[in-house]
Amino acid sequence: MTDIGYIHHEEHMRSSDLISDIVIGMSDGLTVPFALAAGLSGAVASSSLVVTAGIAEIVAGSIAMGLGGYLAGRTEADHYESERRREIAEVESVPEREKAEVREVFAGMGISPALQTAIADELAKDKVKWVDFMMKYELGLDEPDPNRATKSALTIGLSYVFGGLIPLSPYLLVSHPHEALLYSCIVTLICLFVFGYFKSQVTGQPPVSGAFKVMFIGALAASAAFGVARLFG
Amino acid sequence: MTDIGYIHHEEHMRSSDLISDIVIGMSDGLTVPFALAAGLSGAVASSSLVVTAGIAEIVAGSIAMGLGGYLAGRTEADHYESERRREIAEVESVPEREKAEVREVFAGMGISPALQTAIADELAKDKVKWVDFMMKYELGLDEPDPNRATKSALTIGLSYVFGGLIPLSPYLLVSHPHEALLYSCIVTLICLFVFGYFKSQVTGQPPVSGAFKVMFIGALAASAAFGVARLFG
Repeated sequence: MTDIGYIHHEEHMRSSDLISDIVIGMSDGLTVPFALAAGLSGAVASSSLVVTAGIAEIVAGSIAMGLGGYLAGRTEADHYESERRREIAEVESVPEREKAEVREVFAGMGISPALQTAIADELAKDKVKWVDFMMKYELGLDEPDPNRATKSALTIGLSYVFGGLIPLSPYLLVSHPHEALLYSCIVTLICLFVFGYFKSQVTGQPPVSGAFKVMFIGALAASAAFGVARLFG
Repeated sequence: MTDIGYIHHEEHMRSSDLISDIVIGMSDGLTVPFALAAGLSGAVASSSLVVTAGIAEIVAGSIAMGLGGYLAGRTEADHYESERRREIAEVESVPEREKAEVREVFAGMGISPALQTAIADELAKDKVKWVDFMMKYELGLDEPDPNRATKSALTIGLSYVFGGLIPLSPYLLVSHPHEALLYSCIVTLICLFVFGYFKSQVTGQPPVSGAFKVMFIGALAASAAFGVARLFG
């Protein structure tokens, strides 16, 4: 792979980070507030209560998921930095042990001992390359984007809010919760289908069956919440 | 690494899959139902309505997250199988292009062209090793556990239910929601702290600051939900 190939590959990874964050946020945002609202529709007499609960859930869920995404990103970046510092120190202080670790990586690939040694000796000539190698192939760590944590938090949080407002909107317009539930089901199941279709395309899955799966999860969660809330309400 | 070393490594990965599923489920389960219940406490007059909404949320959230985990696991397994079939076919039909791809992987590690060729020729002698290599190092895919999807769904779903019942329990025992909220805050913030402490230990982060972070997300989500629900309620 040429340098340009690497850069393109990296950009591809970054844009799929964004898409994966949108998918994470939207998929729960469409499903959980939809099911909560459906559940409450079977237990309360007024849409305004469903709206209050739904909005509380969207706020709670978007903060929990968004900040959760932020902390996960920060943890990943901190972990990478601390492991890198350790590898740099080890390459200086115990080079023979580190060379043995390089040979172990290639032994795991099924490479013969003679070639393992040749590769380890060659890598040891350039300490930057050597540390890069240890990070990626011994520890399996890719260098994280420094802004990933903040972007991830915002993307997941906003996608959750956007997704959550779709199933809730009928309850804002229709005062009787059973009637609002009907519209909410129609609108949300269509959106889940469309969302599932694009999500499957992005992740390289058969889009139509993926769309049905995503819609099925939403419908099941909503039916179960409706049944259980009726039992307890 | 010896064969035994590899097996141990694999087992280590599997047990951390389990822990990571528990962390995923518990962390949202403790936070979102807690914040939803807190939000509703500021807007409604009776604890029983908070319980109904909370239980509907737990059912919705556990199904959405559990089935989401199941589908993610199944997708991963399907993706691995289809990529493996493609690699097996390519090793048979276009071996020279596949050898060039092996060389590219090693070029990316900073290995010299002479050694790249030596390695590619050696790997090409054993087609199983060759395909294993392409799967892991060209595509970055590890063979998934065939039962992972089902285990993952159950673990995430049950952890969500278990986590969600903690903040909700005071509302079952105390009829006035403001009073129940006080107990719910005390119990849940303690649980979030303890959970954050263990989660940080497992992921190799400083446990005390990790515990405060997890507790902070919960407190922020609950305060925001309380404020917003009051505004709309």
